[in-house]
Amino acid sequence: MEDSEKIEEEIAKVIEEAKDVEDSVSAHISKTTIDEQSLQQRALSLHSKIRSLRSSLYSLPLNNPTLLHKLDEDLERARCIIVDGDAATLLPGHAHGKFLRMFLGPINVRASKKDIQLKVKEEYNSYRDRTALLFLLFPAILLILRSWVWDGCLPAFPVQIYQAWLLFLYAGLAFRENILRVNGSDIRPWWIYHHYCAMVMALVSITWEIKGQPDCENNQIGVQLFLQWAMMQGVAMLLQNRYQRQRLYTRIALGKAKRMDVVWGETAGVDGQVWLLCPILFILQGFEAYVGLLLLQTAFVGVFYEWQVIFCGVLLILMAVGNFINTVQTLMVKSRFKAKMIKNKGKQRLN
Amino acid sequence: MEDSEKIEEEIAKVIEEAKDVEDSVSAHISKTTIDEQSLQQRALSLHSKIRSLRSSLYSLPLNNPTLLHKLDEDLERARCIIVDGDAATLLPGHAHGKFLRMFLGPINVRASKKDIQLKVKEEYNSYRDRTALLFLLFPAILLILRSWVWDGCLPAFPVQIYQAWLLFLYAGLAFRENILRVNGSDIRPWWIYHHYCAMVMALVSITWEIKGQPDCENNQIGVQLFLQWAMMQGVAMLLQNRYQRQRLYTRIALGKAKRMDVVWGETAGVDGQVWLLCPILFILQGFEAYVGLLLLQTAFVGVFYEWQVIFCGVLLILMAVGNFINTVQTLMVKSRFKAKMIKNKGKQRLN
Repeated sequence: MEDSEKIEEEIAKVIEEAKDVEDSVSAHISKTTIDEQSLQQRALSLHSKIRSLRSSLYSLPLNNPTLLHKLDEDLERARCIIVDGDAATLLPGHAHGKFLRMFLGPINVRASKKDIQLKVKEEYNSYRDRTALLFLLFPAILLILRSWVWDGCLPAFPVQIYQAWLLFLYAGLAFRENILRVNGSDIRPWWIYHHYCAMVMALVSITWEIKGQPDCENNQIGVQLFLQWAMMQGVAMLLQNRYQRQRLYTRIALGKAKRMDVVWGETAGVDGQVWLLCPILFILQGFEAYVGLLLLQTAFVGVFYEWQVIFCGVLLILMAVGNFINTVQTLMVKSRFKAKMIKNKGKQRLN
Repeated sequence: MEDSEKIEEEIAKVIEEAKDVEDSVSAHISKTTIDEQSLQQRALSLHSKIRSLRSSLYSLPLNNPTLLHKLDEDLERARCIIVDGDAATLLPGHAHGKFLRMFLGPINVRASKKDIQLKVKEEYNSYRDRTALLFLLFPAILLILRSWVWDGCLPAFPVQIYQAWLLFLYAGLAFRENILRVNGSDIRPWWIYHHYCAMVMALVSITWEIKGQPDCENNQIGVQLFLQWAMMQGVAMLLQNRYQRQRLYTRIALGKAKRMDVVWGETAGVDGQVWLLCPILFILQGFEAYVGLLLLQTAFVGVFYEWQVIFCGVLLILMAVGNFINTVQTLMVKSRFKAKMIKNKGKQRLN
């Protein structure tokens, strides 16, 4: 009976201990929440103060451009301390989009520590690097095999595998970019919508029947053009990734950007590489629209009619137009900003 | 010049304030982390203590079954305080699986508060309810339209829409169940693997060419069987959802389960409904295997041969076998547990 009494005692102690632990944890959580709220209040009011100071700075008739420049940089430094440090976790990011809620439910994907946010950002960059390489290699291998092994006629299965891979890949990009937005990244929504369109197109083109012999050359024009365009996009992605990473690191070093910034497809800048990248992007967009038009032509003029051909054609043209508008908008915003800066400085010199 | 001096001063103040806020937030985060770690230590050691007490309880030669039962329930109560309260957020869940990392990157989907965990669980349940209803309605509508509108011959497009919807739906289930596991749910891994298989099958069957006239009746046997099986599954899901929710609430009320438990496909129990549910599940699994075998037969004996038919057939059979094994295992674990309890009590009576 001694053993049994001992264990009874221990079990009673364990229940007390469990209640105690639970109470401590609850108290800890509620205290943390309260502390967080007051810190959040401070961070938010400071953030809006910086914004209002900046606008009053530019409305002042300062006749010392060096001073104006210095004060502007000071404000930017203050902003970066807030948005790039631990305090950033308390500032509001974008709300969870429908896409995330549809697939993940109501779980919160906002990181509670800045270093996790940065890890997410870094992983996104390396995902894009890997992706760009495969984006180049996968269609290249298909096209090489087509002329060397398959006698100029692509079989359906490898192309479908490729389309399934595209679906998987664009889904990964869409998830990651949505998560970055929730964590305070400034990525333009269009580039995320673009990935949704690409996902739909991949799914539709999986159902697209790939015609072989006879007259393979004519039947597969659309697929071939698509693969060539995908290869071009792979090259452009590799260049973009390199350019953006360099530019982001330079801007971070200058205190002009926060590390969560993403500039997918945004290419305006002042250094040398943009003159290489910008034409490539516009050519790519033109080629995208051209492939779309060619698909439509095949559907309306050609021998066989499938709804998938028309759908993919229209989608490609819409995506090309959207990409073009967004790239131009980015360029215009930047040049307008630059012009304003120059005008302001000119005015101040006149004064 | 007064204005400019004033703004200079304000900007200097803002920089100081920014540094101060950032320091406070960093200090808050590191303090919270330390507090959390010590609380986690306590919760973990208590959790393992409960486990060791339980095993020593059953090795003791207690000859009082009522006392044994009472002590066992006390231990269970202590465990539930820990695993079902705020302390649960500090206990280790399952690690992030490859699936989540592949699509979402390194973001943490573990909820930091118990009420969010429960919200996630509730949303999962309502997602399953909605799903089950559509699971029943979608194929039913297709089959009704087939005989009333489409003259006994399913067109390809609606079936492909249905397969795409299945892909989307199983992806949603797989994401949600992975997230539940990270948050400490005990869902059996097989049911998640099952959804991966179902996703692959949906993707493959999208590429599956649906033959129409002539000889539609014979060409579409596979698709029809698949739709009928899907309808049966819809009914089973509705029953399961009702049964599991009732059972879970009963067990929570008795203090025998934590609210994060999920019992998809696990049907062993003692109350009345299980005798309805269990045969339905086994019939469903049998029918699943039958559809798989029939697909294989069509591929090997029939007129047309497509790799998708063989692939889907094999996958369906594997899924049916896996489902069967896992359902039986669950039943056996439960009955073994029950037998052990009875045996223990019997031994104690003899002593």
